[in-house]
Amino acid sequence: MEVEQVLHMNGGDGKTSYANHSLLQRAVISTVKPIVDASIEELCSTLFPECLKIADLGCSSGPNTLLVVSDIMDNIQNTFRKLNLPPPSLQAFLNDLPRNDFNTVFKSLPGFYKKLDEEPDKKSGPCFIAAMPGSFYGRLFPNNSLHFVHSSYALMWISEVPKGLVTKAGEGLNKGNIYIAKTSSPAVFNEYFEQFKRDFTLFLRSRAQELVPGGSMVLTTMGSITSNDPLCIWEFVGLKLNDMVLDGLIEKEKLEIFNLPYYAPTRYEVKKVIEAEGSFTLQNLEAFRNDWDSYIKQAKSDLDKKARAAILSTDIRAVGEPILASHFGEEAMDELFSRFEENVLDYMEREKCQFINLVISLTKKR
Amino acid sequence: MEVEQVLHMNGGDGKTSYANHSLLQRAVISTVKPIVDASIEELCSTLFPECLKIADLGCSSGPNTLLVVSDIMDNIQNTFRKLNLPPPSLQAFLNDLPRNDFNTVFKSLPGFYKKLDEEPDKKSGPCFIAAMPGSFYGRLFPNNSLHFVHSSYALMWISEVPKGLVTKAGEGLNKGNIYIAKTSSPAVFNEYFEQFKRDFTLFLRSRAQELVPGGSMVLTTMGSITSNDPLCIWEFVGLKLNDMVLDGLIEKEKLEIFNLPYYAPTRYEVKKVIEAEGSFTLQNLEAFRNDWDSYIKQAKSDLDKKARAAILSTDIRAVGEPILASHFGEEAMDELFSRFEENVLDYMEREKCQFINLVISLTKKR
Repeated sequence: MEVEQVLHMNGGDGKTSYANHSLLQRAVISTVKPIVDASIEELCSTLFPECLKIADLGCSSGPNTLLVVSDIMDNIQNTFRKLNLPPPSLQAFLNDLPRNDFNTVFKSLPGFYKKLDEEPDKKSGPCFIAAMPGSFYGRLFPNNSLHFVHSSYALMWISEVPKGLVTKAGEGLNKGNIYIAKTSSPAVFNEYFEQFKRDFTLFLRSRAQELVPGGSMVLTTMGSITSNDPLCIWEFVGLKLNDMVLDGLIEKEKLEIFNLPYYAPTRYEVKKVIEAEGSFTLQNLEAFRNDWDSYIKQAKSDLDKKARAAILSTDIRAVGEPILASHFGEEAMDELFSRFEENVLDYMEREKCQFINLVISLTKKR
Repeated sequence: MEVEQVLHMNGGDGKTSYANHSLLQRAVISTVKPIVDASIEELCSTLFPECLKIADLGCSSGPNTLLVVSDIMDNIQNTFRKLNLPPPSLQAFLNDLPRNDFNTVFKSLPGFYKKLDEEPDKKSGPCFIAAMPGSFYGRLFPNNSLHFVHSSYALMWISEVPKGLVTKAGEGLNKGNIYIAKTSSPAVFNEYFEQFKRDFTLFLRSRAQELVPGGSMVLTTMGSITSNDPLCIWEFVGLKLNDMVLDGLIEKEKLEIFNLPYYAPTRYEVKKVIEAEGSFTLQNLEAFRNDWDSYIKQAKSDLDKKARAAILSTDIRAVGEPILASHFGEEAMDELFSRFEENVLDYMEREKCQFINLVISLTKKR
């Protein structure tokens, strides 16, 4: 399985599309906004670029995609108003893997530009939104060509499923799980951890070449408190797939060899890799913790548990369906997510499951 | 009708897709290659950019989209080999309207990069292919951010159908035609010509701001020998639509108010606008003339007239279908293009119809 071929959110704008189910990601972007704001403000008032060049890595396709650019536009405007200077132009590169649904993003651009034009307080400079398809585990931009890199909820997707998770004889090391889980062996954790280190190092090295000296990054990713027991939502998806194996709906062998290209690091692990790579100064590293359904409760306070479970289920499906369906078949998805929906919130309460978000703020050394 | 909403080639890679029916455009790109080559060579050996930044405006979606980038990559390699210098990196922006099928282009990128990597003679610098959705009748890039602009078979699509072609009372000025034709009045020609002047001036002004001093452009567009009698293939499509009106298949009123957002200028008209706008030096302006089916004969010499007509019909359908279907309905398209196919080549021979291609080579004044 080539990760680049199957890793993308559900496209379009239909019932199970990512575009309509990215409330969690939206909540996270708004939590992180003050940190992005501080970073952009610092950047603008030290580098004074004529054109601010930014990239949003793992932009996906949906309302959040342009939300980040829009927030940054507002921020630039405010910053330059305070500095009493005309705002720079903005060139924003939306990045995701080549199979991301960019067409849907592009269709929304004319409306986005129109809204910018119609703003009563026309203080923003010209804004040029481009797309850069490709893996961020490698080079995407020319040397010294960016001022700011943003990435939200993308870096936990690693470049490939660690090769050692299936032996040469075809035996799965992480039987019955699809990611590190309580029943995974230390060898499984090690395979994942080594892949994360390689990938994150390559990510940092690539961005270090692309950013101007003094350029900065704000990265939000899923994290863990302790990596070998992440209480991750994918552990729960694994449990449901296991139930389907027991009920004869999925072949046992199919589950045994499947693992997600995913890693939710701890703060300590992130810090270590950044220090070892050496190109960046770590400005800030925060962890936010929330119950799996907190973002839903926050957005719609009047929903009961059943309704929240339904939303959570579709949201996770919008993210996981392409990669799960490519292995287990599209026909298994309805059953899987109906089982997921049925007890995900009971499980969360019993096991005290939380999403851990890491927010990493970095500056390229001069 | 918003041109931006309906002007795009047929997407995907199916039977009537532009991707599979862009042989004409391919033939043109290869005719123009020596001119592009000379322009890039001149650019590289005078500006010596560390990263060559280019844009292909109206890239569409299909095999030709990356052909231009690929040709330019080869050219840079050759030029720098001659100069005995390491080649620069290349950042290429593929531009088209937001409803162009960029997803299909992006899917082919991993294969394109892989081929570059595998080339025996690995002398090319890194290549970064981005997309910039938007109308080229306006700004697309930051100031002074491009070295070279290429555009092939895109500039004849103007930004809108000239407003004066339909009176305020809703009466069509160009009854029975869908573009300037032998039976069009001088008023129709004037409406089109004024729109062309406005659009091409805006195009040049926008590019002048985006190109570095000394930067260059090679633009290929459909042209005419005399603008008020262009013997254009769209005139023939208009005749077929008229036949369908006579047979009661299309409402007369529907045809009377429809006009294409298209203009094929003469060499003289192009030259005049360039001089009046003033930012560019015209290096070269050539016209190529060919029978409508020459490119098919050239690619496949053994085809009979019937087979050539079938190819020509699907090629024109791949280009015209979205905009024609948005007005006349998808259900009319099979009939229209079957009528087109039936006598297009007889008509061509009788009327001596040719495609006129203009190739315009420009340098931004320093």
